[in-house]
Amino acid sequence: MALISPSRRLRRTPFSDGVEAAGVQAYTVYNHMFLPTMFRSVIEDYRHLKEAVQIWDVACERQVEIRGPDAGRLMQMLTPRDLRGMLPGQCYYVPIVDETGGMLNDPVAVKLAEDRWWISIADSDLLMWVKGIAYGYRLDVLVDEPDVSPLGVQGPLADDLMARVFGDSVRNIRFFRFGWFQFQGRDMIIARSGYSKQGGFEIYVEGGDIGMPLWNALMEAGRDLDVRAGCPNLIERIEAGLLSYGNDMTRENTPHECGLGRFCNTQTAIGCIGRDALLRVAVEGPLRQVRPLAIGGAPVPACDRPWMVTAGEKTVGRVTSAAHSPDFDTNVSIAMIRMTHWDPGTELIVHCPDGPREAQVQEEFWL
Amino acid sequence: MALISPSRRLRRTPFSDGVEAAGVQAYTVYNHMFLPTMFRSVIEDYRHLKEAVQIWDVACERQVEIRGPDAGRLMQMLTPRDLRGMLPGQCYYVPIVDETGGMLNDPVAVKLAEDRWWISIADSDLLMWVKGIAYGYRLDVLVDEPDVSPLGVQGPLADDLMARVFGDSVRNIRFFRFGWFQFQGRDMIIARSGYSKQGGFEIYVEGGDIGMPLWNALMEAGRDLDVRAGCPNLIERIEAGLLSYGNDMTRENTPHECGLGRFCNTQTAIGCIGRDALLRVAVEGPLRQVRPLAIGGAPVPACDRPWMVTAGEKTVGRVTSAAHSPDFDTNVSIAMIRMTHWDPGTELIVHCPDGPREAQVQEEFWL
Repeated sequence: MALISPSRRLRRTPFSDGVEAAGVQAYTVYNHMFLPTMFRSVIEDYRHLKEAVQIWDVACERQVEIRGPDAGRLMQMLTPRDLRGMLPGQCYYVPIVDETGGMLNDPVAVKLAEDRWWISIADSDLLMWVKGIAYGYRLDVLVDEPDVSPLGVQGPLADDLMARVFGDSVRNIRFFRFGWFQFQGRDMIIARSGYSKQGGFEIYVEGGDIGMPLWNALMEAGRDLDVRAGCPNLIERIEAGLLSYGNDMTRENTPHECGLGRFCNTQTAIGCIGRDALLRVAVEGPLRQVRPLAIGGAPVPACDRPWMVTAGEKTVGRVTSAAHSPDFDTNVSIAMIRMTHWDPGTELIVHCPDGPREAQVQEEFWL
Repeated sequence: MALISPSRRLRRTPFSDGVEAAGVQAYTVYNHMFLPTMFRSVIEDYRHLKEAVQIWDVACERQVEIRGPDAGRLMQMLTPRDLRGMLPGQCYYVPIVDETGGMLNDPVAVKLAEDRWWISIADSDLLMWVKGIAYGYRLDVLVDEPDVSPLGVQGPLADDLMARVFGDSVRNIRFFRFGWFQFQGRDMIIARSGYSKQGGFEIYVEGGDIGMPLWNALMEAGRDLDVRAGCPNLIERIEAGLLSYGNDMTRENTPHECGLGRFCNTQTAIGCIGRDALLRVAVEGPLRQVRPLAIGGAPVPACDRPWMVTAGEKTVGRVTSAAHSPDFDTNVSIAMIRMTHWDPGTELIVHCPDGPREAQVQEEFWL
């Protein structure tokens, strides 16, 4: 691995001081911001995430705030998910598509009020698309990036840790719901969500100045829970089938190809910009789709570019994320596979950098 | 410095194999793509850039292609620079602004034909803004990212090297003009441009497959010219006053604040989305502006966040890029300074991470 050069353009977060003090070893860049990828080792971090509780600097999940009388209309223009039933206090995972039905982002939308939303974005400058649409349609909305930085608390002991800092009522937050809580006199939105399957919360920290006090309070309160600084874990997120925008899907893919058809209500999502383009695929289904693929052999190297998947002479797909799973004792991966070869049990060949390997389409993801 | 984690999301380029073979030591991430920042050392790379010739993997300068009957109209909507006099074969540096006059990008626009443009972008997903505007206004245009990767050839011996590969007529390309040339039977646009003041070219390599053959041909042809793999050099670009989007300007800044007023024809750029917002600032001028600042003392550390600039008790600006210049024997920097303190010779204090230092506003940049 090479080094990463610091510059202002790669933005620090309100929690960067804590991350550095905890001995971060590697980063990626996400929405022009540092996102830690490893503290002790990917495997040690993985074990700990499944046993204890971690604090994650996911400030890079920047918010696009939409506010004003046309906020709801604009939100529905962005996604094929029908938002009519969504209430303030709810979070929705929303595929965002362009006029061709291509994925622009796969954020979590947070409905603060009828006329106010945050879109908690994956790695693309969605702000530009939303601003362009709002301007082109002359909508009465404000669209901006507020000073809000999510902090993740993930792992089986997350409820215990959070209750110590925010009180027992955090335990009552239901999945993909949020509530308002106080920390040092400041209001914070806390949602039960996060980029792991180990359970936990995301705290939407408004105002960078309160970032380190909160980080320190959580670290202090969780000392006997073995709380540690952590980060989205490559192995765990592949086991769980959590897609990563830019890795497992791009603008070339429809939501249906990404297995996100259940988040699309293309018939009733009136106003969605990509609706015309998606109506047919919503009925007929996609020609290729994301599948879990178990890859044989020794632990795979890092998947830094798509690996071709073949059957006989034919290319039938590609692997876009892969890692060796200690718990499942196989290489777990996320692949986009053509429908002719996507049935569970299908034997395929994955062309890893170190040579071809046998692989098998799985019934479902591992977690 | 920490390590950078590989993943497909951080895209490799058609030249990555060459960059790795040349022993790249550090990267940054730019438009979701790897951009080398250091080969031997920043100082050694700097010396060599000023004496010989380097091949730069600047594939991260992705293109936004605009094509169709409304292409010209859309281009003018994006920028306050008057494009009426621009001819096919020309490149223009164009500030791109939103409806508030805030900078969204500072690319080079390449006019291929009356109805076809490439926008060679700095580090933001400008594609999203352009697509949003085109959709909102129902313009008859195609907007997409083509498979085009710029390769830079920079340094005083650039003409000699390029002539060996593309023929002597490359020498006739004028500054910010381009011509069509052939390499192994493939057409390539070559412009006299680049992100240094040492002279040189940018080759717009269409089709990733021809990337390494071209890289190798240039390396081979320039062996006796001491050609090396290089990259935009932090010291040289600050000496030259070459701004970096995300470092020295963001969406918060107008072009005038960035010293780009000479690229704005706000009165006559009819159709520019930010025109209303910029008319007043075009007449009255900005309240703060980019200035070269010489900072005293030992070589400064990396500027990974803005450094406050003060005069007495008052904050009057901030430094956003800085490095020690061996040639000018001072710390060179780019700062945004309030008009009350921007006159050449003004003595200021810069608050570096290791303490306050004396600094002086310069008459002009160093190169």
